[in-house]
Amino acid sequence: MAPATYFLLVSFLALVTSQAIASDPSPLQDFCVDDIHSPDMHALTLMKVSGFVCKDPMAVNADDFFKAANLDKPSDTMKSKVGSNVMQFPGLNTLGISLARIDYAPLGQNSPHTHPRATEIITVLEGTFHVRFVTSNTDNGNKLFAKVLNKGDVFVFPQGVIHFQFNPIRDKPVVAIAALSSQNPGAITIANAVFGSKPPISGDVLAKAFQVQKGTIDWLQAQFRENNHY
Amino acid sequence: MAPATYFLLVSFLALVTSQAIASDPSPLQDFCVDDIHSPDMHALTLMKVSGFVCKDPMAVNADDFFKAANLDKPSDTMKSKVGSNVMQFPGLNTLGISLARIDYAPLGQNSPHTHPRATEIITVLEGTFHVRFVTSNTDNGNKLFAKVLNKGDVFVFPQGVIHFQFNPIRDKPVVAIAALSSQNPGAITIANAVFGSKPPISGDVLAKAFQVQKGTIDWLQAQFRENNHY
Amino acid sequence: MAPATYFLLVSFLALVTSQAIASDPSPLQDFCVDDIHSPDMHALTLMKVSGFVCKDPMAVNADDFFKAANLDKPSDTMKSKVGSNVMQFPGLNTLGISLARIDYAPLGQNSPHTHPRATEIITVLEGTFHVRFVTSNTDNGNKLFAKVLNKGDVFVFPQGVIHFQFNPIRDKPVVAIAALSSQNPGAITIANAVFGSKPPISGDVLAKAFQVQKGTIDWLQAQFRENNHY
Amino acid sequence: MAPATYFLLVSFLALVTSQAIASDPSPLQDFCVDDIHSPDMHALTLMKVSGFVCKDPMAVNADDFFKAANLDKPSDTMKSKVGSNVMQFPGLNTLGISLARIDYAPLGQNSPHTHPRATEIITVLEGTFHVRFVTSNTDNGNKLFAKVLNKGDVFVFPQGVIHFQFNPIRDKPVVAIAALSSQNPGAITIANAVFGSKPPISGDVLAKAFQVQKGTIDWLQAQFRENNHY
Amino acid sequence: MAPATYFLLVSFLALVTSQAIASDPSPLQDFCVDDIHSPDMHALTLMKVSGFVCKDPMAVNADDFFKAANLDKPSDTMKSKVGSNVMQFPGLNTLGISLARIDYAPLGQNSPHTHPRATEIITVLEGTFHVRFVTSNTDNGNKLFAKVLNKGDVFVFPQGVIHFQFNPIRDKPVVAIAALSSQNPGAITIANAVFGSKPPISGDVLAKAFQVQKGTIDWLQAQFRENNHY
Amino acid sequence: MAPATYFLLVSFLALVTSQAIASDPSPLQDFCVDDIHSPDMHALTLMKVSGFVCKDPMAVNADDFFKAANLDKPSDTMKSKVGSNVMQFPGLNTLGISLARIDYAPLGQNSPHTHPRATEIITVLEGTFHVRFVTSNTDNGNKLFAKVLNKGDVFVFPQGVIHFQFNPIRDKPVVAIAALSSQNPGAITIANAVFGSKPPISGDVLAKAFQVQKGTIDWLQAQFRENNHY
Repeated sequence: MAPATYFLLVSFLALVTSQAIASDPSPLQDFCVDDIHSPDMHALTLMKVSGFVCKDPMAVNADDFFKAANLDKPSDTMKSKVGSNVMQFPGLNTLGISLARIDYAPLGQNSPHTHPRATEIITVLEGTFHVRFVTSNTDNGNKLFAKVLNKGDVFVFPQGVIHFQFNPIRDKPVVAIAALSSQNPGAITIANAVFGSKPPISGDVLAKAFQVQKGTIDWLQAQFRENNHY
Repeated sequence: MAPATYFLLVSFLALVTSQAIASDPSPLQDFCVDDIHSPDMHALTLMKVSGFVCKDPMAVNADDFFKAANLDKPSDTMKSKVGSNVMQFPGLNTLGISLARIDYAPLGQNSPHTHPRATEIITVLEGTFHVRFVTSNTDNGNKLFAKVLNKGDVFVFPQGVIHFQFNPIRDKPVVAIAALSSQNPGAITIANAVFGSKPPISGDVLAKAFQVQKGTIDWLQAQFRENNHY
Repeated sequence: MAPATYFLLVSFLALVTSQAIASDPSPLQDFCVDDIHSPDMHALTLMKVSGFVCKDPMAVNADDFFKAANLDKPSDTMKSKVGSNVMQFPGLNTLGISLARIDYAPLGQNSPHTHPRATEIITVLEGTFHVRFVTSNTDNGNKLFAKVLNKGDVFVFPQGVIHFQFNPIRDKPVVAIAALSSQNPGAITIANAVFGSKPPISGDVLAKAFQVQKGTIDWLQAQFRENNHY
Repeated sequence: MAPATYFLLVSFLALVTSQAIASDPSPLQDFCVDDIHSPDMHALTLMKVSGFVCKDPMAVNADDFFKAANLDKPSDTMKSKVGSNVMQFPGLNTLGISLARIDYAPLGQNSPHTHPRATEIITVLEGTFHVRFVTSNTDNGNKLFAKVLNKGDVFVFPQGVIHFQFNPIRDKPVVAIAALSSQNPGAITIANAVFGSKPPISGDVLAKAFQVQKGTIDWLQAQFRENNHY
Repeated sequence: MAPATYFLLVSFLALVTSQAIASDPSPLQDFCVDDIHSPDMHALTLMKVSGFVCKDPMAVNADDFFKAANLDKPSDTMKSKVGSNVMQFPGLNTLGISLARIDYAPLGQNSPHTHPRATEIITVLEGTFHVRFVTSNTDNGNKLFAKVLNKGDVFVFPQGVIHFQFNPIRDKPVVAIAALSSQNPGAITIANAVFGSKPPISGDVLAKAFQVQKGTIDWLQAQFRENNHY
Repeated sequence: MAPATYFLLVSFLALVTSQAIASDPSPLQDFCVDDIHSPDMHALTLMKVSGFVCKDPMAVNADDFFKAANLDKPSDTMKSKVGSNVMQFPGLNTLGISLARIDYAPLGQNSPHTHPRATEIITVLEGTFHVRFVTSNTDNGNKLFAKVLNKGDVFVFPQGVIHFQFNPIRDKPVVAIAALSSQNPGAITIANAVFGSKPPISGDVLAKAFQVQKGTIDWLQAQFRENNHY
């Protein structure tokens, strides 16, 4: 890739940021569709970032604001699947919102995690499941909020708090729709970030933090090295 | 109502505004739950504004972030029903998002309107329906974008543009979930605002704007005076 | 145009957006002047977007912040003329404001429209004219606010509401100055967007929305097809 | 004043701030009119702050968005008069813009100052005058930009930079309209803040800063003590 | 406490939020000092929130912007001490920044945590210590960044990422200054939130998340129940 | 430099702006490191702007978030030295904060100036020094706030106000750490901007503004022409 092109591409990374920094949902145009079909996007993908290059407005059409998905075909189970953030849905670029369809297998769960850039509001389409979040540090912090949701119920997870959901039923899946207040909410899965980081966090530090023997930490980290799946 | 109380209440109106102005989704606390169960809220409701008084954090519980809704019981048809904006869902206060469940009767529609404060992302739970939006004025503006959505499909309406949806099928309803990027998106239904305003807009102005005889305008406005339903 | 150049240009479209998203009026430099005199701008113009490429700060001079206009020479009548948004005034780029000089011929009007991205504050230089706006949907919504303005009077139209102005006098023009709280406020002229969209909105939908016979809608749309002027 | 009332009032000061902090121009309602006619406002005025208490929306009318001003009657000369910031125009509350009509007597000037919270865009209604601004510190900073404006000309002063205007003509006044991108732009008149502060700045510090003898500074400060006019 | 007063106070909680939501650092006045010395603040403190009631500007003095701290007297060791967020420093209210002085005893550490509302920039005054942060989930996420800092060195932790610091030296303390880009950054200590929440998180969920036997989780949670110190 | 490259570079200037405009501290990625080591950066430096090109995330490492500085080696005296704004510290890009280490020689001072884009919070590491700021124009404006700071003391300067610091001691230096709430706060040194601008401000204007004879102004400006040091 020629230097000129390279810098052109990396300038898009800056764009990603500058667009994201601005949480104000009124762009200077009606829309700025991410041009994912352009050849250079492949290079960007290799760079692990979506390009956020605006398509020529004259070439934009309704399909840019559309994403087909079959609710009858469950997505992979055990973990959430964000179905339409800006990485997968070019029309969301600069519009400050995203949507996910989530499937939970029987006894499946979405482990404790945070979304650093969005509040999440979730509604249940099928089944019964449990939602939880933990507040931040204060004299009364680290308080667990818990609720059971049935079909049609709605719940909101405030931005930044650690939260999780699980399907306690042995023989029925759960289907839910989650909307997030950012075109790219981000996610930090706690266990993976703390015990599965590359390279691993010092066992001495984690032993102190979790108030256990270093041996326990070593073993926890070993689990993640073996079967690490994000 | 004593002056003191009155000013206390109106100060809440200012709060509503100041909270809304801030589109940044990171509040200074984990949450600020709207205290709708307080006696003063009744007065506020009479004043046609939700209070946005934060509940004592120690009194907040999971139910504040929960809204029960039965997807099997359709909401009233022919028009959209925003099921959980901050007016109806105290936990959404300051969190920058809201969610609506929408039902369309056979041949029902959600007439052309705008949301001045939010982008809308919609997904279909049942049925088939048509979505449209029109871009703003430019040399190539007022362009209509159209798409047919089936179960599971997702579509996004950029903030501020005129948009609408309708169910073209004679014998099947449509159920959809819409998420909006504001705790209180607002709505302006074009026909009602232009032909049903109180008092009515001058017929001469509308005749020029719509390029018709004043008589046609008079008649259009008469329709709205008779069967005005918001 | 070589692919490299093309992507360079479209990256500017993204810039437009990212700059707009940010409504905060403090840029990282004193200014970022739109470089409209650069050759590539022609390509951008063909793409129907102003480039928002910052001029080399060393090349910026006072003329970049200046726009000549002759108040004695009226602009075209019957509709407003936004005299200095960022498309026409490079120095406004990133500065969060624009200014318009508006002329109304005798009996001229600025038809019902919205500015999705700005509040408008207007003052009368010559003549007498009428201003109106309609509030959004609520139990008490779609309320018409009306005022007559004389020379020197000031009026404000809140962001996003439908508003219009007209000169009721048969033999005197009106001259006004309007300031808007965005470098590119945008505009949606209601009648044109609803009855003049390309392609047209389904007559059945509009008939229901406006509570008239489909025939009336067909005829309204025909007017716009014939003498459409934006 | 009872403590309860006192705290109610001071809570308005916080409101002022919170509303101002948010530069996003889309409030949660169509408007939040400052209730300046309420009895408690007198107390607030004594506290040198406008209240920003929202009027009951049902009581709001077109006059709240209107300000009468007679362009034929010049305002006091020699210095600018901000004719409609939120302190004087309740309808501007939360709407992110303000407007000023400025009169310059023959040889009058608006001395070097900054607006910490707004960009200013100015247009000339009558006469000829000179505009200037100075850029901030950089290797090429503190550069003076200068322009002569005639009737109808427009000029923009970027937010935060030191700027000034003057009427060089011995026998003709200047009338201008200035719009600012904040409901309360604020102003810091350099000479008054540096040489007229209460208490005065140490003469030693100013002598070093301005590279003159302390005696010169003492004399400069004496001038301001005598005929201090803001 | 009378209902009226109660609602007055809770309205301050909303203020806290509205001020925080707005990350724009330009208030409508020069400052809005938190009035912590007012009687009602005691009630607010009981409610575990600082009041953010603006002091009468006429009563504000230099001490409101000042906080005495003796760098020779170390703060308590083993964990960080945020020395001047808005809870402890009234003048910071609405100004968008806070500062902490941090002491690490020999072998002391600040365990893995996130600041949901701020980037942290840290500089070392005395000693040598280690800083780490882990990136969020992506194909290449959960990457550990590590650095050793000596006296005078500066390091930045991007907002929202899990990070920690420790003093590896057996016989020398570390003193550091951390600045955060919010008047109230917030903190979530991972181990405490996950294993020390009240009530505890289901052992089954954590066993799956951390890929260990439920017995290990039970034991981890027991540690926290015994010697829980925030 | 080829046109293509030139426009690529200037697009970075726009990026600078768009990133700055957005004061919201949550980017769309964990970070966007300024790629200062790229060849094109030399050209950008000549253009007196840092590039804000994001490095390929895969190439980012801990050194990008690190800045070495030796607190034992004082920086140049008499004026402040901002040690780590984004121009000098690529990792700060988009993160909304910067840090400065400031040294004051005996009797040294940091002359009256403003930071248009940031609040400043300062803490003393060594010595005793004086801090001052002056409020903006109001009936009670241009008020001087003064405080003496000793080792460990903290003081905050609200955004946009004129402020300064000086070391009154004849034989001891002062060392301080200042954090600012922007990645690029900007600075306007009053005396230099008013009396040292290029070209100079008209003596007549300054004579009126400072209420002195034009001769005094001429002499003040002459001082700056001779020994101008920024």
